[in-house]
Amino acid sequence: MLSVLLELQRLKRLDRTGWVLRGLPPGAESVAAHSYGVALTAMLLADECAARGVGVDVGRVLRIALLHDLQETRTGDMPRTVADYYGKEARRAAERAAFDDIMRGSTGAAAYAELHEDYESRASLEARLVKAADGIDLLAQALAFERAGSRGLGEFWEGAAERDFQLEGAAREVVREAVAALVDERSRQ
Amino acid sequence: MLSVLLELQRLKRLDRTGWVLRGLPPGAESVAAHSYGVALTAMLLADECAARGVGVDVGRVLRIALLHDLQETRTGDMPRTVADYYGKEARRAAERAAFDDIMRGSTGAAAYAELHEDYESRASLEARLVKAADGIDLLAQALAFERAGSRGLGEFWEGAAERDFQLEGAAREVVREAVAALVDERSRQ
Amino acid sequence: MLSVLLELQRLKRLDRTGWVLRGLPPGAESVAAHSYGVALTAMLLADECAARGVGVDVGRVLRIALLHDLQETRTGDMPRTVADYYGKEARRAAERAAFDDIMRGSTGAAAYAELHEDYESRASLEARLVKAADGIDLLAQALAFERAGSRGLGEFWEGAAERDFQLEGAAREVVREAVAALVDERSRQ
Amino acid sequence: MLSVLLELQRLKRLDRTGWVLRGLPPGAESVAAHSYGVALTAMLLADECAARGVGVDVGRVLRIALLHDLQETRTGDMPRTVADYYGKEARRAAERAAFDDIMRGSTGAAAYAELHEDYESRASLEARLVKAADGIDLLAQALAFERAGSRGLGEFWEGAAERDFQLEGAAREVVREAVAALVDERSRQ
Amino acid sequence: MLSVLLELQRLKRLDRTGWVLRGLPPGAESVAAHSYGVALTAMLLADECAARGVGVDVGRVLRIALLHDLQETRTGDMPRTVADYYGKEARRAAERAAFDDIMRGSTGAAAYAELHEDYESRASLEARLVKAADGIDLLAQALAFERAGSRGLGEFWEGAAERDFQLEGAAREVVREAVAALVDERSRQ
Amino acid sequence: MLSVLLELQRLKRLDRTGWVLRGLPPGAESVAAHSYGVALTAMLLADECAARGVGVDVGRVLRIALLHDLQETRTGDMPRTVADYYGKEARRAAERAAFDDIMRGSTGAAAYAELHEDYESRASLEARLVKAADGIDLLAQALAFERAGSRGLGEFWEGAAERDFQLEGAAREVVREAVAALVDERSRQ
Repeated sequence: MLSVLLELQRLKRLDRTGWVLRGLPPGAESVAAHSYGVALTAMLLADECAARGVGVDVGRVLRIALLHDLQETRTGDMPRTVADYYGKEARRAAERAAFDDIMRGSTGAAAYAELHEDYESRASLEARLVKAADGIDLLAQALAFERAGSRGLGEFWEGAAERDFQLEGAAREVVREAVAALVDERSRQ
Repeated sequence: MLSVLLELQRLKRLDRTGWVLRGLPPGAESVAAHSYGVALTAMLLADECAARGVGVDVGRVLRIALLHDLQETRTGDMPRTVADYYGKEARRAAERAAFDDIMRGSTGAAAYAELHEDYESRASLEARLVKAADGIDLLAQALAFERAGSRGLGEFWEGAAERDFQLEGAAREVVREAVAALVDERSRQ
Repeated sequence: MLSVLLELQRLKRLDRTGWVLRGLPPGAESVAAHSYGVALTAMLLADECAARGVGVDVGRVLRIALLHDLQETRTGDMPRTVADYYGKEARRAAERAAFDDIMRGSTGAAAYAELHEDYESRASLEARLVKAADGIDLLAQALAFERAGSRGLGEFWEGAAERDFQLEGAAREVVREAVAALVDERSRQ
Repeated sequence: MLSVLLELQRLKRLDRTGWVLRGLPPGAESVAAHSYGVALTAMLLADECAARGVGVDVGRVLRIALLHDLQETRTGDMPRTVADYYGKEARRAAERAAFDDIMRGSTGAAAYAELHEDYESRASLEARLVKAADGIDLLAQALAFERAGSRGLGEFWEGAAERDFQLEGAAREVVREAVAALVDERSRQ
Repeated sequence: MLSVLLELQRLKRLDRTGWVLRGLPPGAESVAAHSYGVALTAMLLADECAARGVGVDVGRVLRIALLHDLQETRTGDMPRTVADYYGKEARRAAERAAFDDIMRGSTGAAAYAELHEDYESRASLEARLVKAADGIDLLAQALAFERAGSRGLGEFWEGAAERDFQLEGAAREVVREAVAALVDERSRQ
Repeated sequence: MLSVLLELQRLKRLDRTGWVLRGLPPGAESVAAHSYGVALTAMLLADECAARGVGVDVGRVLRIALLHDLQETRTGDMPRTVADYYGKEARRAAERAAFDDIMRGSTGAAAYAELHEDYESRASLEARLVKAADGIDLLAQALAFERAGSRGLGEFWEGAAERDFQLEGAAREVVREAVAALVDERSRQ
């Protein structure tokens, strides 16, 4: 457990590259801070889904959220554009290998790897909810930056209202409502 | 949900005051980044407990971890010493009121309040594991700072090996092992 | 004297929480930097008052300004909203106790405590002028941030032009003119 | 008054260059934060002098302390070494001219200029006490950095114990005691 | 060579003072980062000049660009306004002396000094192209800051389109086109 | 040219990931600042080589140095460890594609691509000297951090004295002397 405890500390320092490349100052948002936002958002989304009758394993949602960016201690936080150069498959393989190396020797390494793989392939409802939470926390952070004076973040909002994150039914509604509320709030600035 | 999504963004910027007061530069660790460390650490601890036969609700552990510092969006992160001046009870009441105001109107506000109260009173095993994770992530962060050259953090290590966080049996062992591993690692620097 | 010399260094690192919670980056304004602004502003206000015939002890004004936030080395800089949760009386008592602990053993500890208490109770003209300087430096800092691109600081300007800081006569005029000049300058942006 | 209120805000952002050139991170200490340290230190020194029977105008001490670096809004904070290239006289003339431009049109501009000139020429006891406070706050900041892990600041301590800042009698004793306490504290690290 | 290798590291930390004085956060742009921008811009300009038939020594352009701010390891980065107080001649003499001290004992110290002097006096086409690159990188950085939300940088754009940097013919065209493209891009924001 | 002028600005903000992952604060060294260090170091190395009779095209050295990390505006600065997960070939192909996209449409795009490819394959003496400069600036930066108090950077020094960067003869000697001087300087700390 010690090695993971120490390695996760790196995420507290590692900047989310996307903001830096758009002119936000160093330290604007760490990967760890974003992961916290994703996990808390995922909890709120999943609880709302459950309240509307969707069968969702909230504990699994939270596990996936906490693990989904952990490999960035070794790969760094690569900007979106980099995927165009490496290819989606190469990126996924590299992230999976790094994740496995981090967890090697931990109790539950196999279970953690299964959760990570689920996220990468968006196989389960829980994985898709985390992906939605990842997108929603990104928008909420972008809105917070914009409210504080940032400009040039418009591209993050393009098409946001139409994304369905491969969700259906009430889960889809919950996510769309959250995104719509953010888009609406932004339009009032 | 919108108001919580936006309010949590503040924790990504808010510095952990304890480090700043000891000379770490601004931005050293945000409250959100620490909360991420606590949640991931709590998951590792709880899973290890479960593997050793302890009956623990890991989902509840993760919920408590994600919520336990949320009120700092309104109270700020007060240094340890401040408790000597306000008193433990006044602090708890203020944090509870701020937390309730944040969640007011959310689906599940009552359930979230119950989890927060559990943490404050350390009523459940799950709450105590989160408190242990809070202490362990603090030590891991201190060690990471020390490895990078920081000095003057010795007080955080005093008595660390003896704290039992009101835990018993295998849960106590799991936590003690994690703390001992950190203390041991530090002694090799 | 040594302990005070060392303890005051903490204020150079401690961020003013209000800015951070509104999206300014870590390091935007330290408590020490603000205290400098308050002291220099208070000198300008008091000298202007004296030039208009107000009997004011400028030395006392400067002493109060330099001491008024010193206790934050132990309490941290709590955001405005926190007062709603702790109550004004609890806050004042805590700050007074922290201040006394810092100065304990110093030559003049009793005199410093009297100045601090004066500020907290706004008993003297000098204390009220420092409170006005505190508000004016806040507005000047807000305007500087806004000129550099910050948004979302409008709440600091609400009602600013009407505040009289319990001042009367020429002192009140001097303060109102300074605030009006800032409000006017802002309206030209 | 408006122009001075706005211009002083720059000192809150301006880094003390000496630290940056020795590897401290940006934002380590602003000129405004240092000026606060100097002013508070000067008050403590002057009050101690008065308690020992030295006739000193503490109000004048505080005025000089608050004004002594104000011109850096226009000249920047030049490192020590630069004086070797510009010459002491050229530096003083430039700083004086910048200071006068800042204050031009203020009530009391002439009085402020007289205080600034006093500091530059160390003509009065009050000016010399501020210079001593300037040196003492520098050492206290260096010690705080060293306690937090900084290295390479040894040159600031060379000869520190022997400097007398052109002071005599009890004033000299007060300053020497403060410096000696810092040097002693450092030797215990 | 060792002393230069170590001394140049300081430029990576040293902030460009002009941005800080206009409200950008510490760390917005280092002198080293700016020098990189100038050198790359100078290469692009010089290559374009060569493509249009201008006889230009690109290697000399790059050498001048890399050396032109090196003396700031000792003088710091002084704001524009400071020149009004020291005088252009005093500034040039100080920078020249600092530069010579840095390079003293290096292989090629005389050649580097000649390049530095060329830049200061804008004697050659190559020196003038570097000065143009210095101005163009400043505008590109200003535009990047403005796109990210900064305000209050308008003064840098005043008269920009008319500056000819003492260039003639195709070199002048190349520089004017680059500036015009930046001005045009800015007007679309 | 406009698009390159704007895109290069991103490198002034982008942190060198290796430092961040080892605990240095955000903003410790930007990619642009490092590239400046590499270019200036490469100039010193190449001039020393020429002085010892090595036939080297210094202009080509400087061009390669300025271009060698430019693609990081799109790929980010990936930590060393990431190469273990993507593979050296995939990394090179991605970097090459990103570089070509940045330069597409520029005068001299083909020539710039040739220089970039030269660096990636270390085909020429000039490319190898830039690689050596890249390693030497890394060590000089590490030493500067260590002198300022950083710890945990020992791995960068392992085997440093033995690396020959595929250089021979006098060029190899020049590089070895520079590295040896850094190693020696470090051992005196």
